[in-house]
Amino acid sequence: MDLNFTDNFLVDKPISIEKRRTSYKGKLTKTKGLQMLEDAKKRLRELQDLLYADGSQSLLVVLQAMDAAGKDSLIEHVFGGVNPQGCEVKSFKSPSTLEYSHDFLWRHYTALPEKGKICIFNRSHYESVLVCKVHPEFNLKEKTWKTVDAFDEKFWKERYESINDFEKHLIRNGTKVVKIFLHVSKEEQKKRFLDRINEKDKNWKFSAADMAERALWDKYQKVYEEAINETSTKHAPWHIVPADNKWFARLTAIQIIIQELKSMDLNFPEVSDEEADKLEKIKQQLLEKES
Amino acid sequence: MDLNFTDNFLVDKPISIEKRRTSYKGKLTKTKGLQMLEDAKKRLRELQDLLYADGSQSLLVVLQAMDAAGKDSLIEHVFGGVNPQGCEVKSFKSPSTLEYSHDFLWRHYTALPEKGKICIFNRSHYESVLVCKVHPEFNLKEKTWKTVDAFDEKFWKERYESINDFEKHLIRNGTKVVKIFLHVSKEEQKKRFLDRINEKDKNWKFSAADMAERALWDKYQKVYEEAINETSTKHAPWHIVPADNKWFARLTAIQIIIQELKSMDLNFPEVSDEEADKLEKIKQQLLEKES
Repeated sequence: MDLNFTDNFLVDKPISIEKRRTSYKGKLTKTKGLQMLEDAKKRLRELQDLLYADGSQSLLVVLQAMDAAGKDSLIEHVFGGVNPQGCEVKSFKSPSTLEYSHDFLWRHYTALPEKGKICIFNRSHYESVLVCKVHPEFNLKEKTWKTVDAFDEKFWKERYESINDFEKHLIRNGTKVVKIFLHVSKEEQKKRFLDRINEKDKNWKFSAADMAERALWDKYQKVYEEAINETSTKHAPWHIVPADNKWFARLTAIQIIIQELKSMDLNFPEVSDEEADKLEKIKQQLLEKES
Repeated sequence: MDLNFTDNFLVDKPISIEKRRTSYKGKLTKTKGLQMLEDAKKRLRELQDLLYADGSQSLLVVLQAMDAAGKDSLIEHVFGGVNPQGCEVKSFKSPSTLEYSHDFLWRHYTALPEKGKICIFNRSHYESVLVCKVHPEFNLKEKTWKTVDAFDEKFWKERYESINDFEKHLIRNGTKVVKIFLHVSKEEQKKRFLDRINEKDKNWKFSAADMAERALWDKYQKVYEEAINETSTKHAPWHIVPADNKWFARLTAIQIIIQELKSMDLNFPEVSDEEADKLEKIKQQLLEKES
């Protein structure tokens, strides 16, 4: 299998989102893909142990997508096997009054992972240049601006710049930032919405508001394309992952994350000779005196 | 009195710290200065009300100085008259284990003021390029770096850049950043240390560690000079306030803060005609129905 998951889906030059395939799966079969996912989950668990033991760096996974692209189930299936002590998921819904009373990065800053840990942002600081760009009136809730006229090209450029500066700072200070966009087609979203309506157990996942956002599909594609192009930096590029096949999206995401963890130069802390001698003495004490 | 407090002490081009006077007080007498401070405190209280009512912006006051320069007493005498509901002081001591497990800006980010409020950083994110530059081994507690060799010129340049990016982002998003360095002489510090030792009630303010830092006076002056020059940006310049006379330092600081608040275009929320009509109707209800 010659599929290079990291490079294939990386954004290293300006892209056109409609030219990126949503249903791609290479020559993989679902059976083979699911088997690879199981193997990858074991590897991810090992690497998470190493990240935790090393303790000098952290991993931030930024997950963005249209509704029903599979973010929640991807988190479950990719990170289901890791030790929750070293892994947190932060889901960002509509900001609270306290969050709106700070700058748009504040609630994300406070949620950053400690060193040694993985944190997944389920939706993220990017919502401030996505949903907030489609609905600029949302920004008025921050109270800093009086009318939507304030949200001109310069305003958005500055938001992208703030985001890029923020991520650059994190990377320099030991936090790896991995950004994944689950790319789903409009047709596939329709199928999944219908599933959510037809299956009683899935009804809770659907709201009429999702339908209103679907009507803005083209606008969303446009703001995603712009955000991805403006914030795919050398140190924190976006990955556009084909997401019409959930199993393929999960396998691709986990491979990207494994690749990034492997690039982090993580090591189990070394035990010095002196330290090893001490441990040997303690061992003798335990064996002799406390018999 | 022609003393322009804001412009006189502003850093708008590279400075040499030893050329900045510590004992300057213009032609002011202490009696006149104290009277002006009382008037200024009333004005500050009015402007704080306005900041709170306006609710669209916040004010961050960054206070840095050598030991015994008068930070704590300045906070008491300048902000003693404001409504504590709209004003918070955050004193940054040695970082906790949790704080060390994040990037160096994290604990400051989480402490930022809500819109409508004033926050005073008593010591600040600048300690990361001051005490941490004099004692680079402190940075190892962050665990991201293995040896002090990592702390080369590039490392410090990147820290300044992170700080400048951070402040630029805040300013764009409604937080005014006012940076004040209380500039005290080595001779004056000696006097104040002796006071702290001679007066029993002040003993708690002195620790032997302060004496060890005093021995590093020249190094501290050097890192202050570099930090002030590297981070005096157009939007968030430093103010170097002569601090050998406490009354003069307090008066200067409050004048700078008043000036900044006045520049913020703050307004009491307007009541629309419609809203005024509603209020009138409610007034009638209160007067008639609840007699």
